[in-house]
Amino acid sequence: MKTIEKLSTAIFRKKILEMTAYQVAEADGFIKLDAMENPYGWPNDLTEAWLKTLRNCEINRYPDPDARHLSNKLREMNEIPTELGILLGNGSDEIIQLLLMALPSTAPVMAPDPSFVMYKQISDGLELNFHAIPLQENNFALDLPRFLQSIKAIKPKIIFLAYPNNPTGNLFNTSDIQEIINHAPGLVVIDEAYAPFTDATFMSKISDFDNLLVMRTVSKLGLAGLRLGYLVGQNEIIKQLNKIRLPYNINVLTQVSTLFALSNYAIFEQQTLLIKSLANHDAPLTNCLRVTVGKKEENSVFLTALSQYFSRLNQED
Amino acid sequence: MKTIEKLSTAIFRKKILEMTAYQVAEADGFIKLDAMENPYGWPNDLTEAWLKTLRNCEINRYPDPDARHLSNKLREMNEIPTELGILLGNGSDEIIQLLLMALPSTAPVMAPDPSFVMYKQISDGLELNFHAIPLQENNFALDLPRFLQSIKAIKPKIIFLAYPNNPTGNLFNTSDIQEIINHAPGLVVIDEAYAPFTDATFMSKISDFDNLLVMRTVSKLGLAGLRLGYLVGQNEIIKQLNKIRLPYNINVLTQVSTLFALSNYAIFEQQTLLIKSLANHDAPLTNCLRVTVGKKEENSVFLTALSQYFSRLNQED
Repeated sequence: MKTIEKLSTAIFRKKILEMTAYQVAEADGFIKLDAMENPYGWPNDLTEAWLKTLRNCEINRYPDPDARHLSNKLREMNEIPTELGILLGNGSDEIIQLLLMALPSTAPVMAPDPSFVMYKQISDGLELNFHAIPLQENNFALDLPRFLQSIKAIKPKIIFLAYPNNPTGNLFNTSDIQEIINHAPGLVVIDEAYAPFTDATFMSKISDFDNLLVMRTVSKLGLAGLRLGYLVGQNEIIKQLNKIRLPYNINVLTQVSTLFALSNYAIFEQQTLLIKSLANHDAPLTNCLRVTVGKKEENSVFLTALSQYFSRLNQED
Repeated sequence: MKTIEKLSTAIFRKKILEMTAYQVAEADGFIKLDAMENPYGWPNDLTEAWLKTLRNCEINRYPDPDARHLSNKLREMNEIPTELGILLGNGSDEIIQLLLMALPSTAPVMAPDPSFVMYKQISDGLELNFHAIPLQENNFALDLPRFLQSIKAIKPKIIFLAYPNNPTGNLFNTSDIQEIINHAPGLVVIDEAYAPFTDATFMSKISDFDNLLVMRTVSKLGLAGLRLGYLVGQNEIIKQLNKIRLPYNINVLTQVSTLFALSNYAIFEQQTLLIKSLANHDAPLTNCLRVTVGKKEENSVFLTALSQYFSRLNQED
């Protein structure tokens, strides 16, 4: 072994040395349908109005550590009462990392399987004990008895439930989730990244539970480039997390641009509705490809390419 | 104790419960001289050119996870050879967090005292063992015999050396630092946040050592609002750190705007030279106030207020 690899082995967590990095496929010049992005750009007048707000940005100054204007807008939009706290992150990813960093070493973490890969990826990097509880095979619903039994046995410090689930796309049963929140000895994070595609939400139920947190992002609304996620929960919980949040984690441009975009919410809502109307998903997951609904013409190109691929496969058989 | 506080105690690291959050003073409407910011805004034509580049930003798409255009620019500017790796973060803060998260639990961490507060703050949040080694009392130089002795006794996985040091402003002796790098059993991070104010640098020496990393930020160049830091070191070390870097940590606007600003480097270099020419620091540190050099008129307002304060103090005596 070379000296420098010996050095790595001596310094870093064992689990990191064994890990591979999260791979993102290169997509330059391709139609991109793998990342659940909104395919629509901004109308010209919106872009011009946005650039006008940026003109007064003080890039030479550190950003507001509390991102007050943006936080207030998010509070107003989501009707978050003052007795609840809100914490902003660079996408949901940074919030998941923050939650997991706050746990004592080797703490047990739980999530359904399959679900969003970053729950496990970040847990592994921190050498926490990640437990994946299989969903029901045919409909991807929660296996409630099994989940509750696992909670009892493992006593997870935190449970992540994506709602709707990613990558399966289904909404778990509300009363199943409530049972889980009631039986969990630690925090339950409802990850509502896909909120723009459903009316179902736990946002209005946070005050009913001490241990419930709701996490959202603006990515699926059409703002994936901005990397802005947020977490809502009891003030006491948010207060503890704020102690380890990096003080200037949301930069000036993200604060101003997200506030601007949310002040023009109707446009992104319309784009989202259009994507929903183009979607006609009814696929099983085994041997599956997760595909974003793109623009109408992008979907056609994709479906043609896919059918050509399969007819070629059949010819080779 | 209320139920929710019991819940906190059951979930979070003990050290976090004891911590207080990093406090940033509110500065709305005041002359701001406490954060070592560049006080100058951008000339109008620069702003217009910047907004033009933003017009083509795809805010609806996830950012390039490798920030290739920006990384290449930073490689070119700093003459970083291909056998070295570069990693980008949301300011130095995220890079310090990444380095510390990669260490096994309770790992020893070392830095001089006083130095940049985030080394200790982030170490504490992760319950690592932070060791502060006092600088020499009169000139804030490294106490080399004491530092080397501490390295031998503590075997730190990582040592942070700010160069120039923050908040004392002095440059440590180059040969002292090289001794430390040679004797360190783990990584040595030279934090060159204040690089725009000096010609001294370890950037060109990285290839000579397996365990040397150099960290920089664009904050002190006049771009504190963008939150862009970077770390340069041996590819093997950067590869391990990349495994736990959040894949989309640098957003679209930061990538485009930092690249744009660095392509107009001369303007920011001039502003920095002007700040240097206004500076006339020669203060001891005990009972001291760290003050940014502001614009000429800002400095006058500050000095007048300060002298009024002291003459009032004298009257009260």
